Amino acid sequence: MSNAALQYAATHTDQHLEHLKELIRIPSISGMSVHHPDVRRAAEWLANHLNTCIGFTNARVVEGIALPMVYAERLIDPAKPTVLVYGHFDVQPIDPIELWNTVPFEPTLVGDNLYARGAVDDKGPTMAALKALESLLATDGLHVNIKVLLEGEEESGGESISDYVAKHPTELACDYVLILDTGMVGKDIPTITHSLRGITYVEITAHGAAGDLHSGGYGGIAPNPLQALAWVLADLKGRDGRINLPGLYEMVRPLTPADKAILDRQSAERGPDMLAAAGLTSFPGEHQYSAMERMTSRPTFEVHGIIGGFIGEGSKTVIPAEAKAKVSLRLAPGQNSVKVFDILKQRVSELAPEGVTMEVVWLNGGEPLLLPLDAPVLKIAAAAYGAEFAAPVEYVRGGGSIPVAALFDSTLHAPSVMLGFGLPDDNVHAPNEKFHLPYYYAAIRSCIRFLTALGA
Amino acid sequence: MSNAALQYAATHTDQHLEHLKELIRIPSISGMSVHHPDVRRAAEWLANHLNTCIGFTNARVVEGIALPMVYAERLIDPAKPTVLVYGHFDVQPIDPIELWNTVPFEPTLVGDNLYARGAVDDKGPTMAALKALESLLATDGLHVNIKVLLEGEEESGGESISDYVAKHPTELACDYVLILDTGMVGKDIPTITHSLRGITYVEITAHGAAGDLHSGGYGGIAPNPLQALAWVLADLKGRDGRINLPGLYEMVRPLTPADKAILDRQSAERGPDMLAAAGLTSFPGEHQYSAMERMTSRPTFEVHGIIGGFIGEGSKTVIPAEAKAKVSLRLAPGQNSVKVFDILKQRVSELAPEGVTMEVVWLNGGEPLLLPLDAPVLKIAAAAYGAEFAAPVEYVRGGGSIPVAALFDSTLHAPSVMLGFGLPDDNVHAPNEKFHLPYYYAAIRSCIRFLTALGA
Repeated sequence: MSNAALQYAATHTDQHLEHLKELIRIPSISGMSVHHPDVRRAAEWLANHLNTCIGFTNARVVEGIALPMVYAERLIDPAKPTVLVYGHFDVQPIDPIELWNTVPFEPTLVGDNLYARGAVDDKGPTMAALKALESLLATDGLHVNIKVLLEGEEESGGESISDYVAKHPTELACDYVLILDTGMVGKDIPTITHSLRGITYVEITAHGAAGDLHSGGYGGIAPNPLQALAWVLADLKGRDGRINLPGLYEMVRPLTPADKAILDRQSAERGPDMLAAAGLTSFPGEHQYSAMERMTSRPTFEVHGIIGGFIGEGSKTVIPAEAKAKVSLRLAPGQNSVKVFDILKQRVSELAPEGVTMEVVWLNGGEPLLLPLDAPVLKIAAAAYGAEFAAPVEYVRGGGSIPVAALFDSTLHAPSVMLGFGLPDDNVHAPNEKFHLPYYYAAIRSCIRFLTALGA
Repeated sequence: MSNAALQYAATHTDQHLEHLKELIRIPSISGMSVHHPDVRRAAEWLANHLNTCIGFTNARVVEGIALPMVYAERLIDPAKPTVLVYGHFDVQPIDPIELWNTVPFEPTLVGDNLYARGAVDDKGPTMAALKALESLLATDGLHVNIKVLLEGEEESGGESISDYVAKHPTELACDYVLILDTGMVGKDIPTITHSLRGITYVEITAHGAAGDLHSGGYGGIAPNPLQALAWVLADLKGRDGRINLPGLYEMVRPLTPADKAILDRQSAERGPDMLAAAGLTSFPGEHQYSAMERMTSRPTFEVHGIIGGFIGEGSKTVIPAEAKAKVSLRLAPGQNSVKVFDILKQRVSELAPEGVTMEVVWLNGGEPLLLPLDAPVLKIAAAAYGAEFAAPVEYVRGGGSIPVAALFDSTLHAPSVMLGFGLPDDNVHAPNEKFHLPYYYAAIRSCIRFLTALGA
């Protein structure tokens, strides 16, 4: 273990905090064009910091199709693993401003918590990863090859990084990605997110008559695209929660008994809170699976919106010529978004009722991710990270997606190691965002240990 | 037959046309508040005309809760039938004005057609009924008791007349209502509308979780109100067109063989045109019934709109807390809107899936109407009206509703005799509205004959 690097980190805490505060003071809100110069300023600050303080020499601002990124690398030995360190330096807007207790872009320490927009999402964790690199470079040097790719557009679509990664697979080639942008399930419970769901998001359009009709003239004889959607959506998913698409479940990678045991335990622990938070008394559907298994490791079929006909106040007896449904399937590890799309498209066309033609259009998609519990890199990460806490590492499967992790997986074929340092009450995307400051230093030490052990 | 009255009509055609033109020149657009003084002016003109020209002495403007009506009566003998003559003197707006070939409120004769807003809907036919009364009063006198009720709000909701009729059932008591506000199926084909469908229009609300959820966090476990609506709407109506509500079809008054023969013939005659107009190759659903039977004499179940979730461009993975569907059932003669509502409400609550509660809220309703083909008044009307044409009278069942006819039926328990003088190409509610002027005189003569024969 690199005791020298850990020692360096321990003696530079004040300086590491000041550097984080400097970055936080730049109001780099990517979703507001008026703040785009600040996003660029943050990129420039980071490139400069990487070269003048962290220990790189080639850090630079990389232009994206929308907002800039930052890239740096230090390649020590082709025989060693290469780790791509990812983070993002853009932040969410601060509205509603009147709910903040401190000045959003003036980092303010209250007790152990550093309050500021971007403190935990994601400037704090991003800087922690860089400070780990600084500690290593200032002492023993690196034990793995490092590439750093920082994004300025994570909160507003991430177009630039998608485009950039797709165009630079060789430059960015790596064995692992280290991402510090996830959360912990509770205070002092080290949490590694090792699985995410993919998604196939489509729009189904039902076409009936050539134009809108009136039910006084055509009611009972014209095809009704809204009714057609109801039939098809009801056929595609039963009241038992089963999705009726041939081959869909066969693609799902079965859970190991260890996976299942974790999800069963988490369901027992978290299920009642999740029910209460949603104001529900039961989770309808596939009762034969635990809540957490269903939420993270089973495919879903959800209708998000239906468009067509009359939706104003009162009544109008239109039979619309066309209606659309927005529908997504969340995909479990093992499934593929394009294959699922193809199956869905085929099935919908078979289910179209008389007089109605149906189209299924791809809106977006992404692949599920899984770093199996027995993956060696996960064991190394768990040891490095878990050393900070008394509680055992909690392995979490996410029900949603982290697009950038899916991007690295599909384009670079590199698994993401996601170590969480955010707390459930950190007010991410909300007023009074905070970062529990002890986790800043814990994150620095965890990354030092992980990058050292990985190169051993 | 009152030859004297017919003679009077024949010698006063120019004067009758001039009076119609006078009324048309008042731009009584009820849907535009800037024209409400014109609606009142039309009411005053009619009340005055009824007293100074038609032969009444008690005609008056009747205030409504919104716009005024006109009322007059001449009661000659309690032993004779009483006929309520209905018409409306308000008109539709004239937009888009640039598509008119003539000045909308300056009646212009081109060949046999009188072009003007309101010419056929409904100032021409309304004045024809009054001119028939004038012809009778100026010669032989009336053979039935007459009440005249003219409306100034037909094109904008008809609130005032609904309220007024409900509050004055005794004053307005009658045996029959004569309505000249319908159309003919084709040129020189006398057309009597003897049946209309009713309607039960509801909003179904599905409630799921306490707030909107994200499918990354709750997809696969939360109740989805949009999916719930799909299940319920699919259960309520099958792909075979059958509506699955207990007792619904049992309420439908069976068609007589004569009814059925007419509908079968009309389906053969009009079905191909209706298909072509809607851009369809078949009418999906209850193929065991003819198109016209389905369109006029079978109940319908139509979804008019679904509200809830995300309907913008692109994708958003919301699971809405709530979703609503606007649904109507058109009702065939024999059915009752409130009974159908009760059945629907009960059935929807039974069909609500786990985790979703469903409410059904009444938005509006109206009863179906039927004047059976063998009703004596229909035979009298057909003889009086059919005398004008070489073709036999066509009996039409409408697929929609005429609210005022339903109002007279439900409140006064008086059937409406609806003689059509509008042609399919009369541009009702559109630019270049016209009235085929020979039908003005035919309508006057038809009413003279009908009112004379009814009193005989």
